[in-house]
Amino acid sequence: MRTVSSLRCVVLGGGGFVGINLCRHLAGRVASLKAFGRRQAFPEALEGVDWFNGDFAESTAIATAIEGADTVFHLIHTTTPASANVDKIADVRSNVLTTLSLLDACRDQGIKRVVFVSSGGTVYGVPERLPTPEDGPCWPITSYGISKLTIERYLHLYNYLYGLEYKILRVANPYGPYQMATKNQGVIAAFLKCALTNQPIEVWGDGTVRRDYLYVDDLAGALEKAALYEGVENIFNIGSGTSHSLNEIIELIGEATGLVLDVRNKGVRAVDVPVSQLDVSKAQNVLDWSPGTGLGDGVVKTANWLRERL
Amino acid sequence: MRTVSSLRCVVLGGGGFVGINLCRHLAGRVASLKAFGRRQAFPEALEGVDWFNGDFAESTAIATAIEGADTVFHLIHTTTPASANVDKIADVRSNVLTTLSLLDACRDQGIKRVVFVSSGGTVYGVPERLPTPEDGPCWPITSYGISKLTIERYLHLYNYLYGLEYKILRVANPYGPYQMATKNQGVIAAFLKCALTNQPIEVWGDGTVRRDYLYVDDLAGALEKAALYEGVENIFNIGSGTSHSLNEIIELIGEATGLVLDVRNKGVRAVDVPVSQLDVSKAQNVLDWSPGTGLGDGVVKTANWLRERL
Repeated sequence: MRTVSSLRCVVLGGGGFVGINLCRHLAGRVASLKAFGRRQAFPEALEGVDWFNGDFAESTAIATAIEGADTVFHLIHTTTPASANVDKIADVRSNVLTTLSLLDACRDQGIKRVVFVSSGGTVYGVPERLPTPEDGPCWPITSYGISKLTIERYLHLYNYLYGLEYKILRVANPYGPYQMATKNQGVIAAFLKCALTNQPIEVWGDGTVRRDYLYVDDLAGALEKAALYEGVENIFNIGSGTSHSLNEIIELIGEATGLVLDVRNKGVRAVDVPVSQLDVSKAQNVLDWSPGTGLGDGVVKTANWLRERL
Repeated sequence: MRTVSSLRCVVLGGGGFVGINLCRHLAGRVASLKAFGRRQAFPEALEGVDWFNGDFAESTAIATAIEGADTVFHLIHTTTPASANVDKIADVRSNVLTTLSLLDACRDQGIKRVVFVSSGGTVYGVPERLPTPEDGPCWPITSYGISKLTIERYLHLYNYLYGLEYKILRVANPYGPYQMATKNQGVIAAFLKCALTNQPIEVWGDGTVRRDYLYVDDLAGALEKAALYEGVENIFNIGSGTSHSLNEIIELIGEATGLVLDVRNKGVRAVDVPVSQLDVSKAQNVLDWSPGTGLGDGVVKTANWLRERL
């Protein structure tokens, strides 16, 4: 049986939000741990982790980073759902083509397994069913989602042709410590930062858009389970299994911070589907995983972490 | 209502097997007809068609070719199921990225509709159900199939974002006049050519591999129906709805030619699924199309055409 302590891991995108949390989750518990990325936003967070600096587009840098590993966590995506649509060719180039180089390197070096972070919020497009199961139709409304889907297909192909194992986690909207607060991503971090610094909170649309928010510790746990799982299933939705509106998040942020918030509404984006909520029963049944952190608790933890850094 | 005589068409890949047949099918019946391609294997076949010479990778050449058209038939694919797996990056580059340039040009020029020839034999991978319906799972075992699928997703995205109409035909194995007989494609043309020139016929595997063979005139009819159809459906399987083994084809070739054939068996390829057979009931019901030519008749017609050219 595969055990955590035997894993030789490399985390691609280790310097980013999910990557940092995964590295911290694995550090000291696995046989070896390397992290690869363009930069470390929080260098102190990865102390003791074997760091490889490089761009995902440099295939030799990637090949060096994965040397000696058996498990590759692929967390890199160079675009956001909104930015990918602006230049779709660049999106395919910088995500699909680079991943093909990675998969070639994995095959050539005899890597055992790739655990890929796909996107539960975009691969299904406008969902036919809610909560959305893994076998739902996949017609993304962003190039981001198409690139993720295409990479999923290539993982399947490399397994078929070369025996490279893969597990795909279609992840909901993760949030928590180490998330970079930007306008288009990480709405909880962005809203919290505005709240704690007395800035107005800008909400896209009327705030009724619903998303499936997952605390990042729960995601790190799912990534570990996917690395260890020895059955035949390959694709898992990873989310809270529920959904919350932006207005509900703002309410929770008000409660967590005790502040009166200045909320302002803006126009709707074309990449926004009204509701995203994943059916996570397969991951619960097959991986014996569950999203343990409720949104209220998660927002408090994130607020506490952020407060110390402002 | 849209009528054939009002269509201003451009056929991308007009110099190839399906393209020639489509041009000949449309010529004189549509408002205007242009064909674009790298070369014309049979220049005399396209007399009277407005020919644009160019490579699909040259976006300016494509933009010029589609100027003034309302309907773009996209028949270009630069690889074969077998060759695509050898260099997957080149496959994505030369098919997906180039198609994205085409779609940008179509959007910019206000093209009404793209009719895309996808691949019924590869997008479903190893089919879960036979005959395979359009909503079956799509996990290709060749990069060729993944590229086709990815282009399908981008057609949907361009429709969602920009209103560009699209119809996708997932086409079975077409055969008939003007097919180039090569080792890895067009098995009926290749076998017929061997038979008529007294060469041995080389069969991959034991000859029990079954495929869905579609006479190219029936395909040209389906492409026309897809260009005219005004309903909401976008994806159609286009095949004979039945399947035949290589051994059955060889028998039909023997009957059509009256020759005793020298058949030799070879190894199996990884890209071969044992059976491919499309459920074409949706095209029959929705497009009011049907595959009218039986395999026996089609082989005789193809043999007659080929005999005159040897």
